Amino acid sequence: MTPSIVELIGRKRDGHQLTPDEIRWLIAAYTDGRVPDHQMAPLLMAIVLNGLSDVELGPWTEAMLHSGDVADLSHIPKLKIDKHSTGGVGDKISLPLAPMVAACGVAVPMMSGRGLGHTGGTLDKLESIPGFRTQLDKDEFAAVLEKTGFVMAGQSPTMVPADRKIYALRDVTGTVPSIPLISSSIMSKKLAEDLDGLVLDVKVGLGAFMPGIEDARRLAETMVGIGRSHDTPVVAYLTCMDQPLGNEVGNANELAESIAVLRGDGPEDVVELTLTLGAEMLVLGGAAPTLEDARQRLNDTIEDGSALATLRDVVVAQGGDPDVIDDPTLLPRAEHTEVIAASQSGYVARCDALAIGQAAVRLGAGRTDIADAVDHGVAITLHAKIGDAVHPGDPLATVRFTEQERFERAADLLASAWHVDRTPTESPSLVIDVVR
Amino acid sequence: MTPSIVELIGRKRDGHQLTPDEIRWLIAAYTDGRVPDHQMAPLLMAIVLNGLSDVELGPWTEAMLHSGDVADLSHIPKLKIDKHSTGGVGDKISLPLAPMVAACGVAVPMMSGRGLGHTGGTLDKLESIPGFRTQLDKDEFAAVLEKTGFVMAGQSPTMVPADRKIYALRDVTGTVPSIPLISSSIMSKKLAEDLDGLVLDVKVGLGAFMPGIEDARRLAETMVGIGRSHDTPVVAYLTCMDQPLGNEVGNANELAESIAVLRGDGPEDVVELTLTLGAEMLVLGGAAPTLEDARQRLNDTIEDGSALATLRDVVVAQGGDPDVIDDPTLLPRAEHTEVIAASQSGYVARCDALAIGQAAVRLGAGRTDIADAVDHGVAITLHAKIGDAVHPGDPLATVRFTEQERFERAADLLASAWHVDRTPTESPSLVIDVVR
Repeated sequence: MTPSIVELIGRKRDGHQLTPDEIRWLIAAYTDGRVPDHQMAPLLMAIVLNGLSDVELGPWTEAMLHSGDVADLSHIPKLKIDKHSTGGVGDKISLPLAPMVAACGVAVPMMSGRGLGHTGGTLDKLESIPGFRTQLDKDEFAAVLEKTGFVMAGQSPTMVPADRKIYALRDVTGTVPSIPLISSSIMSKKLAEDLDGLVLDVKVGLGAFMPGIEDARRLAETMVGIGRSHDTPVVAYLTCMDQPLGNEVGNANELAESIAVLRGDGPEDVVELTLTLGAEMLVLGGAAPTLEDARQRLNDTIEDGSALATLRDVVVAQGGDPDVIDDPTLLPRAEHTEVIAASQSGYVARCDALAIGQAAVRLGAGRTDIADAVDHGVAITLHAKIGDAVHPGDPLATVRFTEQERFERAADLLASAWHVDRTPTESPSLVIDVVR
Repeated sequence: MTPSIVELIGRKRDGHQLTPDEIRWLIAAYTDGRVPDHQMAPLLMAIVLNGLSDVELGPWTEAMLHSGDVADLSHIPKLKIDKHSTGGVGDKISLPLAPMVAACGVAVPMMSGRGLGHTGGTLDKLESIPGFRTQLDKDEFAAVLEKTGFVMAGQSPTMVPADRKIYALRDVTGTVPSIPLISSSIMSKKLAEDLDGLVLDVKVGLGAFMPGIEDARRLAETMVGIGRSHDTPVVAYLTCMDQPLGNEVGNANELAESIAVLRGDGPEDVVELTLTLGAEMLVLGGAAPTLEDARQRLNDTIEDGSALATLRDVVVAQGGDPDVIDDPTLLPRAEHTEVIAASQSGYVARCDALAIGQAAVRLGAGRTDIADAVDHGVAITLHAKIGDAVHPGDPLATVRFTEQERFERAADLLASAWHVDRTPTESPSLVIDVVR
């Protein structure tokens, strides 16, 4: 029997539950166009305001996950573990993480997205590499994974079409801020990768999509719960996104900073978060008995060069120029540079990830519309982060840009990103909490 | 500056207010298609769940009211007062009321609707009269009003187009049950009639759209508040709709019962409610100093035949056959009759207006879809109402029908409408409360 869509809308409006059958019908009917946007949008608004219960959220996510093709990687005899970040500024963790984990024998079938708004995207950073292809078909994806141990590509348009359609509708109907809708969107895409486990990096703070700790914790708990109902172990870290991760914000420069991590020369916060999340992946993937042991194994992949070699293998396998891995100065670099300097003495109390991320978008490193092109060579390099002492004239950031006019639009925002206090501020803890 | 529709949706989602300028832009942009259904619908859902404040509701109603043509009756030197009912079963009050009030010198420019769902519509009842035209253009409408003192027609499609469009969208998006949206819909249509005052009949009980007294009271207060912000005095009565008004439910038979009222031979409840609402209209219209005095004047229009003569004038002016006023047996009557009889002894405790209204729809007296045709001659005549004593075999209702199959579908529902108890139940009070 076909449910009445008006009745289903009314049910969510009045705070009642939909049955699993009704949810499956709804997601399928919206995906194939039987339920039009003007009926799905008010139903989504009712969910934003009244929520989805735990018993609805499992079937909702499963219905989205099964709305299109689902990956089948069962012929690859390793456990498959992925990591997902809710999005941050300077968040290049995936780039050093995947080759390190893969070098330890855990398969990482990473389907990534593009940057949108103030946060960057892994695919944009990878496309700094001349020739690197991020659109792979199903067979290529599996072949690269099998050969190298990891793969990084965009999700095929035939996978999770329900999410693509619902996400586009939410974007124009004011129905984005909903923990169940965000959770089911992320988890349906990730679980469609045929995973044996998932580590989530849920960002908290100024540069996060959900800045508040309580919202972030609920988001983490909700996603872990969806994993449980799918019988897939999920570990969620709440990590600080008050200031950018590392010293580089952009695309090519973030890739270069990631290569530095693999050479043993990365900034402390990026190295630490990579080891923390990677250790969980190794334990989930059965490659280490304890987190401590896992960190040692990951460190070894830096020391013995195996992680860097694995990255080089993937670049070759996906059509990119491997020379940039050996010599990152070959990566695109914008022509002009300017320095943003401190105007007073003191200690950095704030190095606002949101303002810096937005400044990067104004430079051309990101996009405000999914159709925008990205300038891979523009870059913001940070010279002072929270807790650092500065004096007037000291550089806070170096900006690398292509167009003067874009630099000027970015510069004001960038100057406002730093607050300098007389008294020292402690650098914030990177890891705030873990939800298992 | 054009507001961002996504931002406005977000504002209502988060429980904040829109400015009058934003509301004017929104209603105009939705009416002319710049804001599509898939963005208006979630905004309406946010209003259903978070409400509209009093300071938003005035501009919202004004914007709807001014979305198309507005009547200009200023050349008619009388005060113009209308009455509106939220819809009931057997609710033919407008039909005797308008000629009685007009006969006292107050102009009644009544724009009415058609029946939908279990409630009847004044236009359908009037169209029982052969030749009677309910679609008048602006000039005809004013000419009939000027000549006869009242006029009853459908609202022209060029008036309040915003309401027509929003109403159609709410119907398919689960966004009907909202006191501010219902109030602004009713009041924008009524205030577009260029009124000097309005009497509202807000139904409470089994056969009302909002059965509960608290919802009905909030609806009444909200509409009176909108009138205040428009500087138009509005009086709202809360009246009982547990059982049908009068003894006739249908179309031609309700018109006949209305003519009986004008001949001094109407059922007590219909006469009483007509006098109560009519007296308020005379006081608002300056034709009587007190309600008591007004009731006397209205009664005189029955005694001296002036109300009946006024109705006959309107029938002639709108192209109808006036002979049916003098001899209501000329009105359409369905061919077949059946009686629904009592099965036990006792007193009627319940005579369910909703079940009877739905049975009338099944007979063909009403419609479930706005495009359905109405059979004017089918009828339900009630022989027992709340408080009446009945014995087995006594008739509860006589059903007049055209198709046997429709009668059978109506009969079960109708039989379930009466509950008979051993102990007597008092007939419910007609008037529950008044909001001024």
